[in-house]
Amino acid sequence: MNTPIFEERTARLLQLLQAATEIDCDAAWIIKPANRRYLSGFTAEDTQLTESSGSLLISDENRWLVTDSRYTLTAENEAPSFSVYTVKKNFVEDIPEFTRHISFSRLGFEEDYLTWDLHQKTGEKLAELSPPITLTPLKGMVDHMREIKEDWEVMALEKSADMISKILDEVIGDLKPGVTEKEVAWRIECLARENGAEGLSFPSIVASGPNSALPHAVPSNRKIQHREPIILDVGVRLNGYCSDITRTVFLGEPDDTFKNIYRTVLHAQRSALGQISPSVQSTQVDAVARNIIADAGFGAYFGHGLGHGVGLATHEGPRLGPREGTLLQTGNVFTVEPGIYLPGKGGVRLEEMVVLETAGPRILTNNGHFYDF
Amino acid sequence: MNTPIFEERTARLLQLLQAATEIDCDAAWIIKPANRRYLSGFTAEDTQLTESSGSLLISDENRWLVTDSRYTLTAENEAPSFSVYTVKKNFVEDIPEFTRHISFSRLGFEEDYLTWDLHQKTGEKLAELSPPITLTPLKGMVDHMREIKEDWEVMALEKSADMISKILDEVIGDLKPGVTEKEVAWRIECLARENGAEGLSFPSIVASGPNSALPHAVPSNRKIQHREPIILDVGVRLNGYCSDITRTVFLGEPDDTFKNIYRTVLHAQRSALGQISPSVQSTQVDAVARNIIADAGFGAYFGHGLGHGVGLATHEGPRLGPREGTLLQTGNVFTVEPGIYLPGKGGVRLEEMVVLETAGPRILTNNGHFYDF
Repeated sequence: MNTPIFEERTARLLQLLQAATEIDCDAAWIIKPANRRYLSGFTAEDTQLTESSGSLLISDENRWLVTDSRYTLTAENEAPSFSVYTVKKNFVEDIPEFTRHISFSRLGFEEDYLTWDLHQKTGEKLAELSPPITLTPLKGMVDHMREIKEDWEVMALEKSADMISKILDEVIGDLKPGVTEKEVAWRIECLARENGAEGLSFPSIVASGPNSALPHAVPSNRKIQHREPIILDVGVRLNGYCSDITRTVFLGEPDDTFKNIYRTVLHAQRSALGQISPSVQSTQVDAVARNIIADAGFGAYFGHGLGHGVGLATHEGPRLGPREGTLLQTGNVFTVEPGIYLPGKGGVRLEEMVVLETAGPRILTNNGHFYDF
Repeated sequence: MNTPIFEERTARLLQLLQAATEIDCDAAWIIKPANRRYLSGFTAEDTQLTESSGSLLISDENRWLVTDSRYTLTAENEAPSFSVYTVKKNFVEDIPEFTRHISFSRLGFEEDYLTWDLHQKTGEKLAELSPPITLTPLKGMVDHMREIKEDWEVMALEKSADMISKILDEVIGDLKPGVTEKEVAWRIECLARENGAEGLSFPSIVASGPNSALPHAVPSNRKIQHREPIILDVGVRLNGYCSDITRTVFLGEPDDTFKNIYRTVLHAQRSALGQISPSVQSTQVDAVARNIIADAGFGAYFGHGLGHGVGLATHEGPRLGPREGTLLQTGNVFTVEPGIYLPGKGGVRLEEMVVLETAGPRILTNNGHFYDF
């Protein structure tokens, strides 16, 4: 990763800021870890959601990375295009100090990450300055930038998807009745690390039998059994980039109900994929899958959205759901993952990760484990 | 874990709400994962800060757990003392629907977790109700409850601390020049899982040589070497409860600088521990360690606080730092972890986790790896 990438992105953000008349600000305060990394190269995560490892202050004349002493050296190493300022007390208390070096008056903030409390405290301190600085919501400007992947980002995502696809191949090949969900999940994590991933992109879901009816099941000590659905929803993080794939597996032939459900989910997914092209509304793609599932009589059992963007975060834009549509664009990378979940019985989910190219979606996940029921 | 615990805690919260004249509200909206779990037993984490897995609404007459369809069954299984409401659209859009079943007018919210954006949207929707509901900051009320551990929580924390202490024993015993920081970190993670922990309580820090000067170093491919400091800062999560311990290790005798630093840090830590008793100010304990380090000439190289509470979260109250003191109380569980970090050279940190009892602090971590330089 080289510095010009971050300089280019930062310059692009400033152009967008200037052009966006509905967002009246002349600087951006970036606190989301993925956005911070995207613009500066600073890889630190927030150890807890309420504990920031730093933030960026970006204006025409300023490139500041404000952090605390735990991260000073890391920040200096990773983000050479930014000036690192180490707070003496904390971000809020240090505002009078570091704003001496800056020159803006209307600061955009990330309203879906900044807590109410920190907004209050920061806002008050900025208002006391002379001249005062005001806070304005950035309305997801950097998140939107991240939705269009650069070519090398697509390659990074493809590598990540490829790794998890192969791991899943190996794990599915070895599945046997009697092993527990936890054991399978742990195997996946070991393979991810042995293959050089930083780790998982999210805690693996390995859900068997009735547990597969829980879309966000946590792996348990339940032993997997013959003829029941086993959902594996997994991903790795490789060079910062996340992957996400789901397969539903049966050891031995399932009953007709699950064959029907499986067929329906697969049909819904393939049909939705067929509908995807640049400038299509995301709600329209979701509707294709949702209608097929509803027509098959399972409308009440598909409660989540059809998919989500994937990149430096496992869940990002664009969202594909029944509400709040967006026009899909070339360079978007997202999942397509319909599911049907019968409470107490079990469920089926199938998920691919695709990049949208001019010619249509190209599937990045690469695992052929499907049934032809 | 049985239901009466959650009923008792919820009742206690309501008593506190009623008694707290500075917090004018008759209900609490709980969104922090650890607080949610503490009051209800619902174990789900938030996959991202911006993606809630649910929240609690608690008033004299209501015990609601509002979640979405991904978590309905888990919530019903884990939180039987709450009524589970599954949103049809999302929390904000569903407010007119589920508030039909509730009976309060001033709702306390967690201002250090709720985002500015969600506060705006929720506040607007609640204001449209008739009669309207207003939002008021809860000022950390549930977090404060969690700072005083129940006896069985201390036992759970002791088990967690004991597991990581033993793992560290094994790992330190096997350390050899030539293994990488990443390999050591991965070994710790494997041992945690093999021993039955849910996982790590935070990403392990294994930082050798100059990397040990970074208080939050990420394990790298650097090979550990003779005579240099190796900081291992690690913890597991066992039955929900976190542990946290740090040792600094040398393979072969270090130079006089590091011997001096090690001696100073150990002396600072033991002196701070000697100062701890119920009703002592946390700032006073921090000052004991900080002054010893400053007197030894390293005042500029100890940039972080002395310690933090540990429980369902790795970092919680009480905080032990130079600012914003609090009176330490019986039942507090926290770390004592001074450090000295010389940029470019290396650092030393030593950390114990203690429970404060009437007679003084009892160390829960149980690893005797110290040097008598």
